[in-house]
Amino acid sequence: MELNGIEIEDTFAEAFPIKIARVLITGATKKWALVAATEATGFGTSVIMCPAEAGVEKIVTGNETPDGRPGVYIQICTFGYKSLEEQLLKRLGQCVLTAPTAAMWNGLPDAEKQFDTGFKLKFFGDGFESETEIGGRKSYRIPMMEGDFITEHSIGAQEGIAGGNFFILADNQMTALAAAENAVDAIAQVEGVITPFPGGIVASGSKVGSINYAKFMKATTNEKFSPSLKGKVKDTNVPADVNGIYEIVINGLSEDAIKNAMRAGIKEAVTVPGVKKISAGNFGGNLGPYRFNLKELF
Amino acid sequence: MELNGIEIEDTFAEAFPIKIARVLITGATKKWALVAATEATGFGTSVIMCPAEAGVEKIVTGNETPDGRPGVYIQICTFGYKSLEEQLLKRLGQCVLTAPTAAMWNGLPDAEKQFDTGFKLKFFGDGFESETEIGGRKSYRIPMMEGDFITEHSIGAQEGIAGGNFFILADNQMTALAAAENAVDAIAQVEGVITPFPGGIVASGSKVGSINYAKFMKATTNEKFSPSLKGKVKDTNVPADVNGIYEIVINGLSEDAIKNAMRAGIKEAVTVPGVKKISAGNFGGNLGPYRFNLKELF
Amino acid sequence: MELNGIEIEDTFAEAFPIKIARVLITGATKKWALVAATEATGFGTSVIMCPAEAGVEKIVTGNETPDGRPGVYIQICTFGYKSLEEQLLKRLGQCVLTAPTAAMWNGLPDAEKQFDTGFKLKFFGDGFESETEIGGRKSYRIPMMEGDFITEHSIGAQEGIAGGNFFILADNQMTALAAAENAVDAIAQVEGVITPFPGGIVASGSKVGSINYAKFMKATTNEKFSPSLKGKVKDTNVPADVNGIYEIVINGLSEDAIKNAMRAGIKEAVTVPGVKKISAGNFGGNLGPYRFNLKELF
Amino acid sequence: MELNGIEIEDTFAEAFPIKIARVLITGATKKWALVAATEATGFGTSVIMCPAEAGVEKIVTGNETPDGRPGVYIQICTFGYKSLEEQLLKRLGQCVLTAPTAAMWNGLPDAEKQFDTGFKLKFFGDGFESETEIGGRKSYRIPMMEGDFITEHSIGAQEGIAGGNFFILADNQMTALAAAENAVDAIAQVEGVITPFPGGIVASGSKVGSINYAKFMKATTNEKFSPSLKGKVKDTNVPADVNGIYEIVINGLSEDAIKNAMRAGIKEAVTVPGVKKISAGNFGGNLGPYRFNLKELF
Repeated sequence: MELNGIEIEDTFAEAFPIKIARVLITGATKKWALVAATEATGFGTSVIMCPAEAGVEKIVTGNETPDGRPGVYIQICTFGYKSLEEQLLKRLGQCVLTAPTAAMWNGLPDAEKQFDTGFKLKFFGDGFESETEIGGRKSYRIPMMEGDFITEHSIGAQEGIAGGNFFILADNQMTALAAAENAVDAIAQVEGVITPFPGGIVASGSKVGSINYAKFMKATTNEKFSPSLKGKVKDTNVPADVNGIYEIVINGLSEDAIKNAMRAGIKEAVTVPGVKKISAGNFGGNLGPYRFNLKELF
Repeated sequence: MELNGIEIEDTFAEAFPIKIARVLITGATKKWALVAATEATGFGTSVIMCPAEAGVEKIVTGNETPDGRPGVYIQICTFGYKSLEEQLLKRLGQCVLTAPTAAMWNGLPDAEKQFDTGFKLKFFGDGFESETEIGGRKSYRIPMMEGDFITEHSIGAQEGIAGGNFFILADNQMTALAAAENAVDAIAQVEGVITPFPGGIVASGSKVGSINYAKFMKATTNEKFSPSLKGKVKDTNVPADVNGIYEIVINGLSEDAIKNAMRAGIKEAVTVPGVKKISAGNFGGNLGPYRFNLKELF
Repeated sequence: MELNGIEIEDTFAEAFPIKIARVLITGATKKWALVAATEATGFGTSVIMCPAEAGVEKIVTGNETPDGRPGVYIQICTFGYKSLEEQLLKRLGQCVLTAPTAAMWNGLPDAEKQFDTGFKLKFFGDGFESETEIGGRKSYRIPMMEGDFITEHSIGAQEGIAGGNFFILADNQMTALAAAENAVDAIAQVEGVITPFPGGIVASGSKVGSINYAKFMKATTNEKFSPSLKGKVKDTNVPADVNGIYEIVINGLSEDAIKNAMRAGIKEAVTVPGVKKISAGNFGGNLGPYRFNLKELF
Repeated sequence: MELNGIEIEDTFAEAFPIKIARVLITGATKKWALVAATEATGFGTSVIMCPAEAGVEKIVTGNETPDGRPGVYIQICTFGYKSLEEQLLKRLGQCVLTAPTAAMWNGLPDAEKQFDTGFKLKFFGDGFESETEIGGRKSYRIPMMEGDFITEHSIGAQEGIAGGNFFILADNQMTALAAAENAVDAIAQVEGVITPFPGGIVASGSKVGSINYAKFMKATTNEKFSPSLKGKVKDTNVPADVNGIYEIVINGLSEDAIKNAMRAGIKEAVTVPGVKKISAGNFGGNLGPYRFNLKELF
């Protein structure tokens, strides 16, 4: 099929279950909520070697936050609840409690799984902290240098999905990059998802395993999607007129959220002149339980 | 003494040795160099619970980079070289190699200590990578989806200083925050330093140990510098007219770099109307080998 | 009445009719749409000495634009349709046609009043231009250095409202400023309005006429709302605990749009600690036909 | 000649004299200085239909400003001193005096030509203003809602140069745009120059006069540099492999400043893969007294 005259390949993205915690960070202004959110979600692209996958989900006005201040939802993801709890404690304790004007709230108050991260952080108050209720949320007030830090008692988590994805193939790198930036901006409007890579974009789409370094490398470059190797490897997937490819990786709370994000991102990617094709990454369907067919999105 | 009519307290900042690696990240444009640098230095405020302290040092034009593209220097800091090497591999491999248009270069080519992080990352190329020389630097070219990722062979490191600091005491929180933002902007122009906390600012200045939770808390709120406790604790350090305090923490390559940063930051902090006093944090001089007297800066 | 514990004064904002043209600017990415929109709406705070009042209304994704690309709605306002047409031709011809990747579309296609600004701009094509239809809109394609500039034939305009406003009174300038920034961020989410002053904020709220320079000054400082004059003028409106005041001025397409904006802005302004009171500006109701009572907003 | 393997055409940019006023705007933080500067320099791309050409020159720390606060230099340009004085009064009175925390200072205190714009603005104070001296500059303090606005008495101006330029020819539009963005970022580091077009970039390079609409159009598209017309017009200047071209236009205080800017911009433009050629715009040398040969820059 085609979208805006661009080929949407008849393939699917393969994705995996992951555990996701969701936190709402508020600040005195939107800027300061984003400062805390950015620090807390950094060094969080892939659990291959990052301690978590993390990203900013969406920005909200004070109408949607317990303290009436502007806020930012973030997601933090790991494969197990134990490592997730540890990451919450470290990332929120070091990057939100320390951040100017930030407060933190439960982003999944109705989830079955709840961590008492806020309760644990209150001990930073050294006995001067107190319990309070703000916007109906059980919270703690911790006196600090800037004033008082507010944290809700619990942070909720649930099973979600990691690795939703699509590829943008374009005539050159700068075209592919503008299309990828567009896709990420569009996905930022979609509820329930994050794009954890730098700027939301993956430059280094990989394959499982290795041809030449199989003894010590678990993931290596996907040479069949490498433009500079299209004349050098057999069975390249890079069309003759393509010289730049970016992948967008999406984590999210549900299959529908991933689908909405893929749809929104692909729709805006194909508006950039020079985009040639949209594809997606999978491992033949043998590994991940989730499949997102590109054709079924539209 | 006074600066711009504001009291500079007769005290000193106490600081500690740390190991610092310095990396130059270039990108197709300044924006994309910053995207990679921001991801690579996130979750990096304090080694208390972050795997490293990290931050952006400075932005440079292509005149100062091996590949002639705009670039950003970052610093990554841990207490030992072993953990530093591990952090370099993880942060650069996951947050720079994966970032759109990024390349990475040795930010301390003359340092005695050199890690072969670039050499290790080249194996992502799965045998398709090649050695090259760019701007006189021994480098590798790794074919990927976006095109080729370039990494220099080595990343240098040296002993540096962590915990340079000063406190900004102001009539209220918003004044203190504007002054802190000013200080961080000014320090961003100083060679050789980073301000690793969120937005460069610490909201939660702490003391070593704990009064009430000594069994399990190693660092807790510095209640003597807490505005909301000034009527509740003995020997408060918060003047009657102060209701907001922020700390700026500085890591850097040398004592001079830390001094230059403290001087630049304090000078711009005191221009904000409502700032009442500049102080600094120390532990009586018993712990850290470095002392930075505020008075001697001016 | 009070909101979040802050006094909402029992007063009203007085506003005036103005003519408003609305333009949708799209770009290759959101960034480039904003670049064009920012240039086109600059030097546009008040018709007292600017050729128009102008500002960014809202950002939209490609789902809401004729060419499927990200876009930005702007408003341009003057007192008469003749001057409005002239401003459209100049601002769109010099700041949108010239801007990288920008295209321009009718932001009020159903309005009775329509200007053929796009038709006039097509002559820049020097005979190489052609008519086309994109997203059902009659448009022109003008070959230029970057590629082709697309402009819709018509730009619509209607009678709207200028001078909706409220004042934020706070303990000091930095608090008032953070609250004003919050208000502007919240208003940016409201359909149909702009805040034309720098950063959306007025530092220099004025009165009609002059006490001392009546012969040559039509508008001068509103000394009764000046914190530094509160001990020097009779009948000051500045409470003893207030030392900083900002005004938010709002133009919009309808009374409801102005009300929604005032409500959204005031709600977020009062979340900043140190805000003391919300007021509004009027001239006794003798001049402007529109009155917005603060109390009736909530 | 070639630079980084890219052809630098043997041609020259032709430029013209213009009158330039230079203003230093300071703010409570860098952000707020930029907010005022952006508003004051908007709607200022070309004097063909804008009331002035205007732009941000450079950002400075408090070390270089009379009030010790962060600042931004802007330039405002028109063909005559009379229109320049009028533009200063309007743009500074409406976009700087009104801007949060802004103050304004003479950016050319040693120039022979001085306008008393600050003196004229002081009458907004309605008799409550006072004379003061800050950083050795004769200034006025005007009580307003936010607090006091400070303006220096005089703003200096001099004869400068408009229309320094170069063209970036690339394989497609997105490549040309990334290269143009790079060039503008590099030029922002050069003393004494502005790039007045949107984002610093011209999408619509023009020729003097018109082929088909000569009776009413003084400037029209430069069809010989239009990629979409390369197969349709005789003597096209667009190489077969070029599909996107952007022009950078530079105004500045001296020939050296223009040269430095052209050199810096071209050097960073050619680092983007896919750039094919650098050229420049002239009118055969018959019109403008200034010629900047591309070859002589390197």
